[in-house]
Amino acid sequence: MNQLKGACIIGQSGGPTSVINASAYGVIRTALDNDCITNVYGAEHGIKGVLNDRLFDMSKEDAKELDLLKYTPSSALGSCRYKIADPDVNDTDYKRILEVFKKHDVRYFFYNGGNDSMDTCNKISKYMQKVGYDCRVMGVPKTIDNDLFGTDHCPGYASAAKYIATSCMEVYQDARVYDTGMICIIEIMGRHAGWLTAAAALATEYGAGPDLIYLPERDFDMNKFLDDVERVYEQKGNCMVAVSEGIHYADGSFVSEAKTSATDGFGHAQLGGLAAMLAEIVKKRTGAKVRGIELSLLQRCGAHLASLTDIEESFMAGKAAVENAVAGLTDKMVAFERGTHQGRYACRTKLIDLTDVANVEKKVPQEWINAEGNGIEHAFIDYALPLIQGEPDLPKEDSLPRFAKLKKVIAK
Amino acid sequence: MNQLKGACIIGQSGGPTSVINASAYGVIRTALDNDCITNVYGAEHGIKGVLNDRLFDMSKEDAKELDLLKYTPSSALGSCRYKIADPDVNDTDYKRILEVFKKHDVRYFFYNGGNDSMDTCNKISKYMQKVGYDCRVMGVPKTIDNDLFGTDHCPGYASAAKYIATSCMEVYQDARVYDTGMICIIEIMGRHAGWLTAAAALATEYGAGPDLIYLPERDFDMNKFLDDVERVYEQKGNCMVAVSEGIHYADGSFVSEAKTSATDGFGHAQLGGLAAMLAEIVKKRTGAKVRGIELSLLQRCGAHLASLTDIEESFMAGKAAVENAVAGLTDKMVAFERGTHQGRYACRTKLIDLTDVANVEKKVPQEWINAEGNGIEHAFIDYALPLIQGEPDLPKEDSLPRFAKLKKVIAK
Repeated sequence: MNQLKGACIIGQSGGPTSVINASAYGVIRTALDNDCITNVYGAEHGIKGVLNDRLFDMSKEDAKELDLLKYTPSSALGSCRYKIADPDVNDTDYKRILEVFKKHDVRYFFYNGGNDSMDTCNKISKYMQKVGYDCRVMGVPKTIDNDLFGTDHCPGYASAAKYIATSCMEVYQDARVYDTGMICIIEIMGRHAGWLTAAAALATEYGAGPDLIYLPERDFDMNKFLDDVERVYEQKGNCMVAVSEGIHYADGSFVSEAKTSATDGFGHAQLGGLAAMLAEIVKKRTGAKVRGIELSLLQRCGAHLASLTDIEESFMAGKAAVENAVAGLTDKMVAFERGTHQGRYACRTKLIDLTDVANVEKKVPQEWINAEGNGIEHAFIDYALPLIQGEPDLPKEDSLPRFAKLKKVIAK
Repeated sequence: MNQLKGACIIGQSGGPTSVINASAYGVIRTALDNDCITNVYGAEHGIKGVLNDRLFDMSKEDAKELDLLKYTPSSALGSCRYKIADPDVNDTDYKRILEVFKKHDVRYFFYNGGNDSMDTCNKISKYMQKVGYDCRVMGVPKTIDNDLFGTDHCPGYASAAKYIATSCMEVYQDARVYDTGMICIIEIMGRHAGWLTAAAALATEYGAGPDLIYLPERDFDMNKFLDDVERVYEQKGNCMVAVSEGIHYADGSFVSEAKTSATDGFGHAQLGGLAAMLAEIVKKRTGAKVRGIELSLLQRCGAHLASLTDIEESFMAGKAAVENAVAGLTDKMVAFERGTHQGRYACRTKLIDLTDVANVEKKVPQEWINAEGNGIEHAFIDYALPLIQGEPDLPKEDSLPRFAKLKKVIAK
């Protein structure tokens, strides 16, 4: 074994999830317990914390508080949406990162995030190789969007999916309570991939979910949509619809695009307000009572509905990152491989090259969407159902969540 | 004891809650087990089910499914928003109700709802007395709004409050994750009373909630609001705000309606609700990243976050209605009286006259709102905290909710 002694950094990046801290904890706990790793640092706001030399000394934290990270939503170390330059164009950031790595003798770098974060992770990994600085770099996946390449599923997806399915089941009960009928349109996250919106089909599978589901994997046709909704409403007296925030017309323009021209640091359009817009259009067409509901941030921070399977797998991903790095591997992202154990769903980690995963988006297979483009096939249920299983024993204080309280002591 | 034998009807009316079915079950279970009550009927869509002679024979339901009503959100029998006429103006409906009561030998009428429903209940009670038809009438309270007169609190409020507090705590984690800061505005139900919005203060009490809270009990001042938000954002780099959907200007006009008015100087074409509108205005003023979140129907059907205390008290209210009616009482609503038992919170039922409760709204006491009108005093925490305690053991199927499935057999 090629033993390498030194400090490690764990950083979190991109949009948070209910369980990203479970992955961070997987890294932190495993690293604290490993003899090769001399110090465990948490970067404040991802790579920005490295650039600013704002590193938290994780050994100063109470073990019990660290353990609560498993049940604490959002990125406890802070996140960022910082787009790192191409090192061939501008290597200022990379020189600074190297400087901070050297200052703290950082020999392990773990980056916990989605597509963009894996791009950052990949670029840092390649730079360190190029300049000959011995540092093992591992990506730890997270994204509610479930769109990372090379992994059966992503940590964070299942908990958001469970939140969406449960909320749809509850809203279904509410949205058909009157004798007068109602159309309810639920807007779900996912810019380019419809995994989250497809999760609404789990509610339908269990008897209380959307009649119609629209993913960004198919071009959206407003007239077809209105015909669909009107038909269901006339047949049933009620209609529930799930739409992805990323639905777009055949020319690629987002249906919600007229709403805002604001963009985030990566040039993505900031979406939102689609449900309200569609509700207005449907109301005009049908004359029915229509309600638009945007699940908004609630779906990605709803830790009280987290999947125990997701929590455990998220922890496992962080743990695997450390174990593999200490064992000598580098320049990889931890990924999940689905298998069976005694006839039941099982999941184990594997490693894939950071180069392969960076910036590639995995979409819902076309054959999992129905021919009409307004529903989900059963193959998706078989895929998603095992992921949402299990209820964690949530720590509470006076029946409210008890989240981790970190001291965040800055390393000298 | 003035024994009266005959059938009973239970009807549900108005906006549903997470636990209204627990009250219905309290009525149904107690009535099915009582020898004085010969048949137990559930009215389809409240009083409309009586008018249409659409009554479900509850004895035909599986006992296990009925028990699941405790954990099934929304009105399982169906609800309505039917405004019954003044009997002195038009007694058509009352004659029809009497006809249906006589047809099924209905001697007990239980009506499960809020302010308007208690008005309906009161009118029916008085009419039956006037025409000399021996029928005992009992109101069973429910409302997430918590605005019924004469009761310490209302069944349904605590579960919605717990949903709001928990969701605020989770969103708080998410909404300050980036280094760039964010303002988050959460819109909460409650048209005239701020009880639900005040529940966001529970999140703040536990370290992760709104910095600013605005209730409809105080006139809203847009400039003061913008100053408040800007000040907090400048001080903390983040700001979280909870607003009631019912906030209104000094002239009584709703802020949410002002978007079509040019007089306030802020109006512009905007889809969506109050949160989206305020987010737009705050964004213009501060230049910050702002997100508006409307908790919408989710807050009133989020049974997965129900308070066990609320479930038990809701059942108790239904049970007390039947027991008191069978004991000879009529023309009352079941209400809650707060006390202590061995030094801890305890709740028992009492009865108040339907005449007193009908159409009266109970608001948040002015002294529970801070002087600035942008926060909640601790007296509210003391009031609300005992109500949200306890986690029910939720029935699940494959980690998704298992709601009651009723056969709804129409009585001949």
